Amino acid sequence: MPSINPDRLLGDLYELRKIGAYKTGVHRPTLSREDVQSREWLAARMAQAGLEPVIDGIANVLGFSRAGGRKMLAGSHIETQNHAGWLDGALGVIYALEAARAVAEDKACAGLGVDVAAFADEEGHFGNFLGSRSFVGALSEADIDQARDRTNGTPLREALAKAGYAGRPRVQIDPSRYAGYFEAHIEQGDTLEATGLRIGVVTAIVAICQYRIRVTGEQNHAGTASMARRRDAGLALVRLLAAIDRRFPEVAGERSVWTTGRITLEPGDPSIVPGGAEARFQFRDADPAALERMRAALVDLIAQANRDGRCPIELTRIAASTPAVMDERFQAVLDKAAERHAPGKHMRMPSGAGHDAQYLARKVPAAMLFVPSIGGISHHWAENTSDEDIVLGARVFVDAIADVLKGS
Amino acid sequence: MPSINPDRLLGDLYELRKIGAYKTGVHRPTLSREDVQSREWLAARMAQAGLEPVIDGIANVLGFSRAGGRKMLAGSHIETQNHAGWLDGALGVIYALEAARAVAEDKACAGLGVDVAAFADEEGHFGNFLGSRSFVGALSEADIDQARDRTNGTPLREALAKAGYAGRPRVQIDPSRYAGYFEAHIEQGDTLEATGLRIGVVTAIVAICQYRIRVTGEQNHAGTASMARRRDAGLALVRLLAAIDRRFPEVAGERSVWTTGRITLEPGDPSIVPGGAEARFQFRDADPAALERMRAALVDLIAQANRDGRCPIELTRIAASTPAVMDERFQAVLDKAAERHAPGKHMRMPSGAGHDAQYLARKVPAAMLFVPSIGGISHHWAENTSDEDIVLGARVFVDAIADVLKGS
Repeated sequence: MPSINPDRLLGDLYELRKIGAYKTGVHRPTLSREDVQSREWLAARMAQAGLEPVIDGIANVLGFSRAGGRKMLAGSHIETQNHAGWLDGALGVIYALEAARAVAEDKACAGLGVDVAAFADEEGHFGNFLGSRSFVGALSEADIDQARDRTNGTPLREALAKAGYAGRPRVQIDPSRYAGYFEAHIEQGDTLEATGLRIGVVTAIVAICQYRIRVTGEQNHAGTASMARRRDAGLALVRLLAAIDRRFPEVAGERSVWTTGRITLEPGDPSIVPGGAEARFQFRDADPAALERMRAALVDLIAQANRDGRCPIELTRIAASTPAVMDERFQAVLDKAAERHAPGKHMRMPSGAGHDAQYLARKVPAAMLFVPSIGGISHHWAENTSDEDIVLGARVFVDAIADVLKGS
Repeated sequence: MPSINPDRLLGDLYELRKIGAYKTGVHRPTLSREDVQSREWLAARMAQAGLEPVIDGIANVLGFSRAGGRKMLAGSHIETQNHAGWLDGALGVIYALEAARAVAEDKACAGLGVDVAAFADEEGHFGNFLGSRSFVGALSEADIDQARDRTNGTPLREALAKAGYAGRPRVQIDPSRYAGYFEAHIEQGDTLEATGLRIGVVTAIVAICQYRIRVTGEQNHAGTASMARRRDAGLALVRLLAAIDRRFPEVAGERSVWTTGRITLEPGDPSIVPGGAEARFQFRDADPAALERMRAALVDLIAQANRDGRCPIELTRIAASTPAVMDERFQAVLDKAAERHAPGKHMRMPSGAGHDAQYLARKVPAAMLFVPSIGGISHHWAENTSDEDIVLGARVFVDAIADVLKGS
């Protein structure tokens, strides 16, 4: 088995952490000065590891192995959410780099190789999984034309040009080159921590169904419009959301989650009866049957509200993915490697968050491994994982890749 | 009885409507160029009517009668909400001006007079009833220092200086000068229209109790945080608002209104479980007992939510006025004048909206008269009242003032 070098692994993570450091976390939004600096740093590290580095036209950082035999693709992303954690993405990229180095150093792996990828903008500053979508051929030039930074409105084209990446070709995957794709990530929840386990083997990445709920009422003076006369869009929305809160537990799956992340009342003045109201609602599950039950319940509740109420409610589906199932054989290989390094301390689990692996799974067999998140904290600068868990996760990750490459 | 001049009355309203015209309405926010123009126009009209005009240090436009005998104060406000109606405020000011002219022209009213007032910023662009509060001595220099335009942030001091009013003394009421205060206004609701009536005699201006409801939860990833683990501040708020929706009809008075005008979820991202949530909630009634029942119900529902729920909810009272009761004798005089001009077509009713009269009532007996709003539309450029109703309202208004002044 290839041996990882814990000091080299942690050293790289600590060094990367310095670029855009914010409190104990990192602020490295896609194509910010710090993000570009981290991409150039990674490309240099790849070259030092004997890989051939390329930063392509969408800012994906790719390190190609020069090995002649079977190869694995491994990676994640390197940019962060705003003022967020140091490991979200970075962990998977540095694991992949360490895998490339450890496999190259292992005589038993002669001829085998690991390509390393940091897919751009997994965190969605400009869009939705732009880098991995580009890599699997699911991102058009028109998509890029339209993309803008959600925080400051900068067009993606402008940000790419500023970084010096405009006009470069976009590299696409050659599926015949790879045995598959491996990605490691922090869990971002507290399931592992709460159960005292140390490794999660991902079964599937959940589907996310996202909706806009729009209520049309009649704007009115909050003093002079009687309750009987009102068509209060905000109140109609509250009633619907309360009905969802009562119904969903009956139809959802055991691991389903549903969230209202945003509510807007118009005009939003304390003394005006809202004439319009809007909510963003989403639900997630890896089980298509549970997804369908939730969808049907939502449609039914809105139909009922439209029969009983005075404010028309309109439901718009913004996005709906399908669950991305991880390769069953890879899961078994990960189980075995986890059992070797942490006997009895691993479990299979779905991923509630989206990951680049869901796009790679369209082209090659894919696998994901989770390490524990302390306190389940995610998308916050306080996010963390113990050094012991980081090192353990890397051992399992690299072992599993070597197992697959060697065909064991 | 003094005779109003319908052409003069409507002519003034039409002329005032041109200043800041927007669609069929008006855009004349406090101390905007158009607003200042309208104040200067009004002062000139007052001078033509034989009144002594003053624009004071808070931008109140006051026209003082030179009559030696008993005097009535009458008025309203002249600025508008943004892109709002042409009569909200303007109607009451021009009625007052017409009253001053008609009383001065009526030989039976010799020696009696009407002072005319356009109180600044009733619409609250910079604050809360700044003009009438200044006039009754309830506005400090510090209040003025702090006031800023809610739309563009301009300090009130700067806007007053730009208009040329900075440094002028602020005129305060001499209660001994007046028999009382009369204000006319559009109803802003549809009670008169719906009942086929033409004059409303206001019994009281409702009290408004305004609250901030703040929920503290735990921000989390909408995919990785299980439903069991979550402390969703937005959901806790929705549950509370739904509980208010169920309980309030049981405790409220017949004319009570309650409104959630604004909801904010933090951070407001569709894929993040809200860590904080805030709502602005208010209720209104002219009956102190109903107000107290609603207050107690709100406090009780929040206490219950805090016992049962996992997200602490905090209630902050932002403002609470007391009902401003209109003078009973003036109401009877208005009833009589209304019966004379529109037999059987008038009613007594509370005002659900706040008006300058609520501050004037602290110093002198006060009365208010409503004319119908077509379709109950208010705070919108489409607000309107028929010319017939405008003229009828003025006849009742001026008759009632003359009745009081003559002591009949």
